[in-house]
Amino acid sequence: MKSSETRRAAPGTAYLGFARLDLDRKERQGVPEVVYGEGKSAARIVSILKALKSARQEPLIVTRLDAEKAEECAKAFGDEFFYSGEASFGRVGKCAPAEGTCGRIAVACGGTSDLPVAEEAALTAEALGNEVVRLYDIGVAALHRIAQCEDELRSASVVVAVAGMEGALASVIGGLVRSPVVAVPTSVGYGASFGGLAALLAMLNSCAAGVCTVNIDNGFGAGFLASRINHMRERK
Amino acid sequence: MKSSETRRAAPGTAYLGFARLDLDRKERQGVPEVVYGEGKSAARIVSILKALKSARQEPLIVTRLDAEKAEECAKAFGDEFFYSGEASFGRVGKCAPAEGTCGRIAVACGGTSDLPVAEEAALTAEALGNEVVRLYDIGVAALHRIAQCEDELRSASVVVAVAGMEGALASVIGGLVRSPVVAVPTSVGYGASFGGLAALLAMLNSCAAGVCTVNIDNGFGAGFLASRINHMRERK
Amino acid sequence: MKSSETRRAAPGTAYLGFARLDLDRKERQGVPEVVYGEGKSAARIVSILKALKSARQEPLIVTRLDAEKAEECAKAFGDEFFYSGEASFGRVGKCAPAEGTCGRIAVACGGTSDLPVAEEAALTAEALGNEVVRLYDIGVAALHRIAQCEDELRSASVVVAVAGMEGALASVIGGLVRSPVVAVPTSVGYGASFGGLAALLAMLNSCAAGVCTVNIDNGFGAGFLASRINHMRERK
Amino acid sequence: MKSSETRRAAPGTAYLGFARLDLDRKERQGVPEVVYGEGKSAARIVSILKALKSARQEPLIVTRLDAEKAEECAKAFGDEFFYSGEASFGRVGKCAPAEGTCGRIAVACGGTSDLPVAEEAALTAEALGNEVVRLYDIGVAALHRIAQCEDELRSASVVVAVAGMEGALASVIGGLVRSPVVAVPTSVGYGASFGGLAALLAMLNSCAAGVCTVNIDNGFGAGFLASRINHMRERK
Amino acid sequence: MKSSETRRAAPGTAYLGFARLDLDRKERQGVPEVVYGEGKSAARIVSILKALKSARQEPLIVTRLDAEKAEECAKAFGDEFFYSGEASFGRVGKCAPAEGTCGRIAVACGGTSDLPVAEEAALTAEALGNEVVRLYDIGVAALHRIAQCEDELRSASVVVAVAGMEGALASVIGGLVRSPVVAVPTSVGYGASFGGLAALLAMLNSCAAGVCTVNIDNGFGAGFLASRINHMRERK
Amino acid sequence: MKSSETRRAAPGTAYLGFARLDLDRKERQGVPEVVYGEGKSAARIVSILKALKSARQEPLIVTRLDAEKAEECAKAFGDEFFYSGEASFGRVGKCAPAEGTCGRIAVACGGTSDLPVAEEAALTAEALGNEVVRLYDIGVAALHRIAQCEDELRSASVVVAVAGMEGALASVIGGLVRSPVVAVPTSVGYGASFGGLAALLAMLNSCAAGVCTVNIDNGFGAGFLASRINHMRERK
Amino acid sequence: MKSSETRRAAPGTAYLGFARLDLDRKERQGVPEVVYGEGKSAARIVSILKALKSARQEPLIVTRLDAEKAEECAKAFGDEFFYSGEASFGRVGKCAPAEGTCGRIAVACGGTSDLPVAEEAALTAEALGNEVVRLYDIGVAALHRIAQCEDELRSASVVVAVAGMEGALASVIGGLVRSPVVAVPTSVGYGASFGGLAALLAMLNSCAAGVCTVNIDNGFGAGFLASRINHMRERK
Amino acid sequence: MKSSETRRAAPGTAYLGFARLDLDRKERQGVPEVVYGEGKSAARIVSILKALKSARQEPLIVTRLDAEKAEECAKAFGDEFFYSGEASFGRVGKCAPAEGTCGRIAVACGGTSDLPVAEEAALTAEALGNEVVRLYDIGVAALHRIAQCEDELRSASVVVAVAGMEGALASVIGGLVRSPVVAVPTSVGYGASFGGLAALLAMLNSCAAGVCTVNIDNGFGAGFLASRINHMRERK
Repeated sequence: MKSSETRRAAPGTAYLGFARLDLDRKERQGVPEVVYGEGKSAARIVSILKALKSARQEPLIVTRLDAEKAEECAKAFGDEFFYSGEASFGRVGKCAPAEGTCGRIAVACGGTSDLPVAEEAALTAEALGNEVVRLYDIGVAALHRIAQCEDELRSASVVVAVAGMEGALASVIGGLVRSPVVAVPTSVGYGASFGGLAALLAMLNSCAAGVCTVNIDNGFGAGFLASRINHMRERK
Repeated sequence: MKSSETRRAAPGTAYLGFARLDLDRKERQGVPEVVYGEGKSAARIVSILKALKSARQEPLIVTRLDAEKAEECAKAFGDEFFYSGEASFGRVGKCAPAEGTCGRIAVACGGTSDLPVAEEAALTAEALGNEVVRLYDIGVAALHRIAQCEDELRSASVVVAVAGMEGALASVIGGLVRSPVVAVPTSVGYGASFGGLAALLAMLNSCAAGVCTVNIDNGFGAGFLASRINHMRERK
Repeated sequence: MKSSETRRAAPGTAYLGFARLDLDRKERQGVPEVVYGEGKSAARIVSILKALKSARQEPLIVTRLDAEKAEECAKAFGDEFFYSGEASFGRVGKCAPAEGTCGRIAVACGGTSDLPVAEEAALTAEALGNEVVRLYDIGVAALHRIAQCEDELRSASVVVAVAGMEGALASVIGGLVRSPVVAVPTSVGYGASFGGLAALLAMLNSCAAGVCTVNIDNGFGAGFLASRINHMRERK
Repeated sequence: MKSSETRRAAPGTAYLGFARLDLDRKERQGVPEVVYGEGKSAARIVSILKALKSARQEPLIVTRLDAEKAEECAKAFGDEFFYSGEASFGRVGKCAPAEGTCGRIAVACGGTSDLPVAEEAALTAEALGNEVVRLYDIGVAALHRIAQCEDELRSASVVVAVAGMEGALASVIGGLVRSPVVAVPTSVGYGASFGGLAALLAMLNSCAAGVCTVNIDNGFGAGFLASRINHMRERK
Repeated sequence: MKSSETRRAAPGTAYLGFARLDLDRKERQGVPEVVYGEGKSAARIVSILKALKSARQEPLIVTRLDAEKAEECAKAFGDEFFYSGEASFGRVGKCAPAEGTCGRIAVACGGTSDLPVAEEAALTAEALGNEVVRLYDIGVAALHRIAQCEDELRSASVVVAVAGMEGALASVIGGLVRSPVVAVPTSVGYGASFGGLAALLAMLNSCAAGVCTVNIDNGFGAGFLASRINHMRERK
Repeated sequence: MKSSETRRAAPGTAYLGFARLDLDRKERQGVPEVVYGEGKSAARIVSILKALKSARQEPLIVTRLDAEKAEECAKAFGDEFFYSGEASFGRVGKCAPAEGTCGRIAVACGGTSDLPVAEEAALTAEALGNEVVRLYDIGVAALHRIAQCEDELRSASVVVAVAGMEGALASVIGGLVRSPVVAVPTSVGYGASFGGLAALLAMLNSCAAGVCTVNIDNGFGAGFLASRINHMRERK
Repeated sequence: MKSSETRRAAPGTAYLGFARLDLDRKERQGVPEVVYGEGKSAARIVSILKALKSARQEPLIVTRLDAEKAEECAKAFGDEFFYSGEASFGRVGKCAPAEGTCGRIAVACGGTSDLPVAEEAALTAEALGNEVVRLYDIGVAALHRIAQCEDELRSASVVVAVAGMEGALASVIGGLVRSPVVAVPTSVGYGASFGGLAALLAMLNSCAAGVCTVNIDNGFGAGFLASRINHMRERK
Repeated sequence: MKSSETRRAAPGTAYLGFARLDLDRKERQGVPEVVYGEGKSAARIVSILKALKSARQEPLIVTRLDAEKAEECAKAFGDEFFYSGEASFGRVGKCAPAEGTCGRIAVACGGTSDLPVAEEAALTAEALGNEVVRLYDIGVAALHRIAQCEDELRSASVVVAVAGMEGALASVIGGLVRSPVVAVPTSVGYGASFGGLAALLAMLNSCAAGVCTVNIDNGFGAGFLASRINHMRERK
């Protein structure tokens, strides 16, 4: 990079030459800056994590982190580093305690192919201090599987509904529970699923009230929002 | 039109100057030619119906027929003419008898706004000689409404599932029954329903096997296909 | 409709011939069934409202209700009926009390053309028992207008962000607050806004965490969800 | 996965830690659960098949199974395992007997590139107990090829029409036969075929009545539905 | 308009204040400038026609000309003006003579709703000096109607194939003839025809060689191109 | 609206109950706030204009202003109000003087149907203090019309290129001049123009460097940007 | 494949087990069946070519043939086989003689990246018996390059215009010549070219009359059609 | 290639057999022809560069140049060759001097993943003779990062705003500055970003005036246009 770039880092930020870090986001918004691992080298990820860690911004989350880069993080942070290969999810530092929240977050998904996205949501919510109950492979093609989980769905304070293909799970759950439902379309499917578009549109058009939607495959976003909602009690 | 046009009508067809009618489709394919009413004048519709009637191609169906044109048909055919304003559906001649079919056809729909399309399907199936059971306003936002109809859904030989918005009804029914399910997306909805595209994509991506899809708002096509399937017994 | 239709109404439902009403949704999900006014005749709307009212499902909300139909409702329910022409929103019965909620809901919008959708959200939230603060016409083209409202945005328990065109308001607010943000894209714009698609995609791709999205122009859905979130305290 | 997940398997289901199997779907819907091979490891596929086999849910179908995983299945099930590389299709157990059906299923396709999808349909139908006649490479660019097969098309009880590019085969066959036609668009083509979208839209808009459509490349779904239709006689 | 505009008209052009006419296009490209009637006032259309007529650019064609504007043209040009309401097509001056061309142009269409577009093509070709044979309502849902016209299709020098819905007519004709086929998708249809997109994509993906496509509903463009092709003999 | 709304107007803004005006945008960004007339009542438009005028934010521009509302503005502002019906463009106050700019702005358009958009661009630029040369109806179907204007195109300091249909004008001009080219796609066309999408994509993909694009039909935006560029000299 | 397939080959066709060849297409339509090489193994391609060659269907064209498969063809047919790596184009047998045609075919392209598609068109036309003049890299960003070729464009009997990005070349050439123009959009470009969609839409919306379009990257189709047009003289 | 191609090179052009170079574009348009590296072999790139260099068309820019091809260029041009791997950008010859321009160009980007596109813009502008200030990783999710750079943004003569995901950066900057803003959407994102479409639409619909847009990932185009604008002073 050239000498003409702005190197000055204002108070509360750090400038690493390739990134401008927000060092007091935890104070300002309750959660530290989260690192999007895709397209960043392992070395850059490690240096960002170190800078944020020095500013006591824990726990730190890295999403879309492949196994190879995760190994570099493991070398750098040792036992402090947790990694889930299925969810491509890394964490530095302990999960925040789940005290004082409204209740448990249920993460449900339609099929086994939705697991990586569902786990990203679940691990994010756990890292941010929530108890999570996983209800996996309960797609609408066999409604009695949802029926089996009805109690756990109803007793959750927030439900994250993860589904690909036709994304009907969100509407069916939305009609059962009285808590907020965060729907996550996944890119699972082929042909006219158009990379998750079918599920996305279905969720946006849900006939059940109380359902909102995040981006395709955005398990992180859903877990993050569910955590914010689950922490409403605390804020008052 | 010019003198250069082909006026010759081969055997089995009639050429009216603006249309080339198929006078033996009933013999060839079991059902007479059906008249698509949109964009045709009342006068042309009446003359087509008369030509087909002369060739004993009854019962005759006219779809997308507005009230004004229906009045002209009523004048021309008197008591032989039946009209449903809700479904914009006209019929000349009696419904074919429902004997010898595999069973009853269930026509289900998600909400009251889907009624015109559902009725088009039901009236088509009745005209073609089928007993029809209507199960309306049983959308997935309140699963117990579907549960109430479960027996009637399971005992039907074919199910037509009509739904707009997210179109989840097709998948939920597909998971309950063992008969073929013909899904009809409707243009009911707004915003990201994109004129029925959301429901269409959802139905094409249904995670339940045994579901097929017809065009958006194509109640006629679904009733027609359901009738063909319900007449399988007869054909052997 | 034909004699073959299912007239039986199971316990907890009422069958009006054209609609199958959910009479205990308030008990089951906390909020009565909401009536979507578009495509229903005034007479049908009034009869649905009467049936639900008899089952003590108040307050009742009717969305997308035009002025003419509203007049019929006013005749039928007198002083119990409230109507906002700007939001095409009707209500039978008093707003639920706003006690015991987590705090106030802020409804922000980008421009004056977004007002109908923003008001639909605000009136819905008020009907369901929430205190609402309106922050209108604070689009990102003049950031100091957002800055003026920063305190009210930060102190709200939930923020509904309504915007058309490029929909940047959701991301900017998402970066300022620590509460959940419900984004509502509107169809305000022309050309490449493609009926709200541009704003919808922008909101789904928001770089700010804690943002979720509902359908284009779905002010009702956003107000409903915001209310659910704001009532989290109560549920524990 | 975490200890917080729901391990309880209700009656009729088995929970394998990553999947929740439906052990009595054959009893409930006539056909066992089908395994979608894409995105599952060979080990997981084998363990799912074993669990379903123990519950006597044969014959078992695995779709989108690549050659490498098929080898693992062959090791696990020996002679009981059948595999077609062209169709990426696996089967455990014998095909169901084709007795008592309405007749033969014809599987037609437009070009040689459509063969994998056509074979998936044919093998699925055979596994589920149907006699299948294959009519391949009879695209509309040379109508006399269709003419050669006209007798076999007309005498079939159901026709599966598989085609990519402009998908005209479905309409042409739909105009010839009096049996139900299940259309399968394929992703064969380039440029403005947009991954099968052109064929999908063409099939949905077929001017021939009696045609329904399944997802792009969904040979399995078409074979499954055709089998259901062909078994109508049995059900009465 | 302001005084700053460029009024200078270079040789071979005329500047009317709102339009810059090409006065020698007939000499340069064989055919005079054609007037697109939509969005122009009757007065402007008449003044353009008069200017072109003064420059002996006959016959003059006006497309998308509604009945009201046509009346003004009739007043201005009397017997020299021809108008077809069905095709919204006007012409000033006699059709060019059809001598010396390669043969006859066949204009075929799928259904009666495609007539306005087919007629626009036929009238354009006739105006530009071609003999035209019309083969209307020969859609692929009844192949024997095409068979009846096979001789006329095969003997034509160019075929214009006009069809909406799934647009299969172009491929079927393309497989029968050895002359160039100009395909015109129409916006006839509903739902997933998306205003003619389905037919357009089908025609672009035609499996028959020798087929090219023009814009949706562009009967003029097809007739114009067919005429150019039919005049190839002359040019040598 | 409710009493809960924020009425406080911070310094430099005015709150009218339905709009939050930016009273010092002229000081901050050089140009006063512009009023988007669509969807605002005449009364609201007049009151916004009066408030901005009081703050000496002249000249004031109203875009997408229909004739009826323009009449109300004319009543309110008398001779100070200018209106162009073709461009649906209103202005209060005199055009800013065109002194000190880099040169003249050329506004070119492809056909007469593009005139409303081209005029919106031209009138905007004139209001903001620029000399404008109009080069209309110079579409690429007759290159010699562009050739006639080549000198005026080359001598302009900025060129605004307005075109619908295939939008080729921008690329052709971009290859001729050395000044910045602002391309405006218009919704002129039909069928596969998809409301201006074809022209928009063409302009975004221009093979000529130095071309940028604004929204479909956004003549105002192009005129505004062209003015900013033409005032570069002044700013140094 | 199964024993149930139809092996019977009617007169004029050959059934190879995986393909149904049209052995008298040359007689029927003037040109032998063309082999689409993508997705076929080298062995299958060779056996198809041999079967067609035995039926004296020369010259044989194979499109989308990669270098590896071409080597197998070279082994099988020796000197009779011609291959162009740039165009992925193979030919068995000599080019047909170019006698008796209307004139020369000009193949023009916008940039060097369009060369593979342009060459596919040129080689196809040459194989089918046409003289071809190549005018490459004459994109509209530098109009004087087109001007240099104006004579050759004007004197050609048919022009094939190949371009990616914004596809303006077709319109510019369409405005210069009086012969038919076959436009070929290419997938050259990135971002909002959307795989050639931008160029395709531009060409379909060309403001120049006499232009038709084939599928994206379909050089073969354009060369084939141009040849058909260029042979018009012969046919009379 | 064949002997039939046009080898004649008119004055001011060079024909290399595969490319037709514009040797006096620098004189005509101020900047030499730029080489698009994708899809060209290293050998061809080098020969093009040599031909242009011989015609004194420096500095020469090569975009989308991968590291391997860059090495060949380095061998051919030695010290005269500059390469940035991050931006895939090559340059032969020194940057033009930045004298006489209107001021500095600011290149801002939203996140670190946008760096390759931002650098392409910055390096292009520097090569063409501009001083560039880089303001990277200032996305709207943390407005105070933009605030830190506000002075540098306001003092720039042109701003290039590079952003993926929801692309809000362009609108926020557009509301802050009074200089022209060139927005560059990037393909950074996943799911409903649809390869940069979300950012592109957002930027085209920016509610801030004075913003224009170039193609997705087109850093070069933005840098080029910004340079043209920044050289306005010089031109007068």
